[in-house]
Amino acid sequence: MKRSPFAPKKIPAMPHIEGVSLNVWASHDYYKNRNDVLAISLPENTRAAAVFTQSQTCAAPVELSKQHLKITGGKVRGLVVNAGCANAFTGAAGTRAAVRTAQAAAQSLSCAPEHIMLASTGVIGQDLNPTAIIAGLKNIKPLRHDRRQNWQAAARTIVTTDTYPKLATQRVKFGKHIVSINAIAKGSGMIAPDMATMLAFVFTDAAIPAALLQKILRDGCDKSLNAISVDSDTSTSDTCLLFATAHKKLGGAPLRSWQDKRLRPFIIALEKVLTAIALQVVGDGEGISRLMTIDVRGARNDAAARRIALAIGNSPLVKTAVAGGDANWGRIVMAVGKAGEVVSRDRLAIDIGGNSVARRGRVALDYNEALVTKHFQKRQIHIAVDVGAKRKGQKEKGQARVWASDLTHGYVKINADYRS
Amino acid sequence: MKRSPFAPKKIPAMPHIEGVSLNVWASHDYYKNRNDVLAISLPENTRAAAVFTQSQTCAAPVELSKQHLKITGGKVRGLVVNAGCANAFTGAAGTRAAVRTAQAAAQSLSCAPEHIMLASTGVIGQDLNPTAIIAGLKNIKPLRHDRRQNWQAAARTIVTTDTYPKLATQRVKFGKHIVSINAIAKGSGMIAPDMATMLAFVFTDAAIPAALLQKILRDGCDKSLNAISVDSDTSTSDTCLLFATAHKKLGGAPLRSWQDKRLRPFIIALEKVLTAIALQVVGDGEGISRLMTIDVRGARNDAAARRIALAIGNSPLVKTAVAGGDANWGRIVMAVGKAGEVVSRDRLAIDIGGNSVARRGRVALDYNEALVTKHFQKRQIHIAVDVGAKRKGQKEKGQARVWASDLTHGYVKINADYRS
Repeated sequence: MKRSPFAPKKIPAMPHIEGVSLNVWASHDYYKNRNDVLAISLPENTRAAAVFTQSQTCAAPVELSKQHLKITGGKVRGLVVNAGCANAFTGAAGTRAAVRTAQAAAQSLSCAPEHIMLASTGVIGQDLNPTAIIAGLKNIKPLRHDRRQNWQAAARTIVTTDTYPKLATQRVKFGKHIVSINAIAKGSGMIAPDMATMLAFVFTDAAIPAALLQKILRDGCDKSLNAISVDSDTSTSDTCLLFATAHKKLGGAPLRSWQDKRLRPFIIALEKVLTAIALQVVGDGEGISRLMTIDVRGARNDAAARRIALAIGNSPLVKTAVAGGDANWGRIVMAVGKAGEVVSRDRLAIDIGGNSVARRGRVALDYNEALVTKHFQKRQIHIAVDVGAKRKGQKEKGQARVWASDLTHGYVKINADYRS
Repeated sequence: MKRSPFAPKKIPAMPHIEGVSLNVWASHDYYKNRNDVLAISLPENTRAAAVFTQSQTCAAPVELSKQHLKITGGKVRGLVVNAGCANAFTGAAGTRAAVRTAQAAAQSLSCAPEHIMLASTGVIGQDLNPTAIIAGLKNIKPLRHDRRQNWQAAARTIVTTDTYPKLATQRVKFGKHIVSINAIAKGSGMIAPDMATMLAFVFTDAAIPAALLQKILRDGCDKSLNAISVDSDTSTSDTCLLFATAHKKLGGAPLRSWQDKRLRPFIIALEKVLTAIALQVVGDGEGISRLMTIDVRGARNDAAARRIALAIGNSPLVKTAVAGGDANWGRIVMAVGKAGEVVSRDRLAIDIGGNSVARRGRVALDYNEALVTKHFQKRQIHIAVDVGAKRKGQKEKGQARVWASDLTHGYVKINADYRS
């Protein structure tokens, strides 16, 4: 597979997170000559937050992980991920395979099965053979001190059609400590928002209660992983997990609200990590040649703005125009019109690459097609739309930013020619 | 452009509809060497029904036609259609161009401008130059007896990226008469349902009151033009108009209800015409190589079934799998899951080409991939899904049929490489 033009030039150096042990191996079931199972053990006080797919046909590992979090209230000791088989739409056999995997992990880590999180990615409808996963789990030691956490190897183990591993990190002040936030993720097809997108695992050594962790993860995802789209198709397996090992305590009064000022730097840093991961996922969208950044304002509220931005980013006709480098901006008008949100056609304004394209419901007086076409030749396309929704003389403030890949021959080739 | 493999072998012989005069000419503004303006004069008692795009950024001709129908209650005397420029997102200048066109047509036909319907199709955001349209309209005579109605020429005049003209006809008993239903239409990109799709014009010599006409057109569209999808993109210009010239009266008591038994044969025949037109539109979907027929049952109601069927038909991953002839049915599970409707993953059943694929939430015991792959090599793919939604032991009856094209290199080529 050709490497995406958006592959990061450098893989970030990931700081050590105390007590986290990364283990990878090959099941030899779904891939040749590569690792495809990742098992992570976590220290005893780890708390987790999660955002899962909204799919009505979600996979067995998603269902089991949800149950486990409900039972434990967010106490987690381990994570097992496999690539190549999604263990989705596999009925009772799939549930059994997931349960057995959790039991094997729990035995090695001396904890209850409910403290294990699971995630699988790959082909839907195929039975998962857990034999090699379970055999490998026997070798995992509880609380092993992993001096040389190989985050890059972990990220490489969970990819499917991705053309590069996805990692991001931030260091941030947390009370009197500096804490780390490390994330690994995979894309890169069946990517659509309104859920956490595909697999993303975030680790921090900060001590944050599970309920607050959940709130700040959900908020962070809305602006990052839930604001990207490759193909408008929602996976059965999307999972984003945030683990806080509680190694570094904030000090002072206990954390009770996500609005506690002392959490602010952490929330901002987490959003940076999630956005970096989201951009790496969309930047590795199947067959991508250009990346759109779509800013919508003037909508009735932020959610409406996001739906309009996604209607633009998901439109096959906008995507193919971008792929072809064709400044066919009428298709943006079409996409705004079909979004099903309140907009004013006659106040609609569009800018592309900072050039005015449309004003007050028609082509702008100073529209310069040559300039816009030139911008369309770039790798990164910027589309800004003011939809001019307004009620009772009031200025509408709803706004959102969304990132989307284009639709190329490469996408068709990957998805029509290979089983993925 | 390569001709679609679904092009009908034969263009139907269209019966004469008394009092309808078809006029075509070339504006020379948007195409070379072809007609692109169609003007149709209609007899005095003609009543019209209409279904328009749901787009919030609809085109000037859509807006004006809606207004006119509201004013006249469905009395119509003429229709003017042009191809190449959609007169959409053209502000006050676009409205002016539409108003002037209607005025010119009204003058030639000795009627009020409100009795004129307009439709335009083509590029969005480009100003329409109405000069050649208005000049041509001066040559139209009111109530001219058009002995040799050339329906094929009319259908050819309104196409854009279509690879064949679209015509359908039925003859049906109407009281003591036999009436005709003739339809012409165009496709073939920016085709998504929940509205009438692109341009479709239906003519009958039956006498049916405007209110009933509207009800039976809306019902007919739901099962035909609103049940197809090429690319999930909704046009600014979609218009379906049904004209009843009232030449042939039913006799007996006046028609008061659409449930009047005497209307039944007409309603069935109209549905046949609309379905034939819908299949021709989706069969000419940009770049189409295979056509999916998707049957969904076991949903909570018909609307839910239609949304699930469309989620399957619109999914880029299902469309590319079909294009590639790959029996990757897990993507159908994914699409059912993302539709946002109540379904039961664990009762889900899928058949492809009459072969059982999935039963009770997992692969069927008698699944034979070779058979399904063989079906996937055909031009016409049949997908049947029972989503097993059920409440309180009750069998759910919601069902729908939808037709969709696949997603091929041809689609990307047409839309990334040409301005359309």
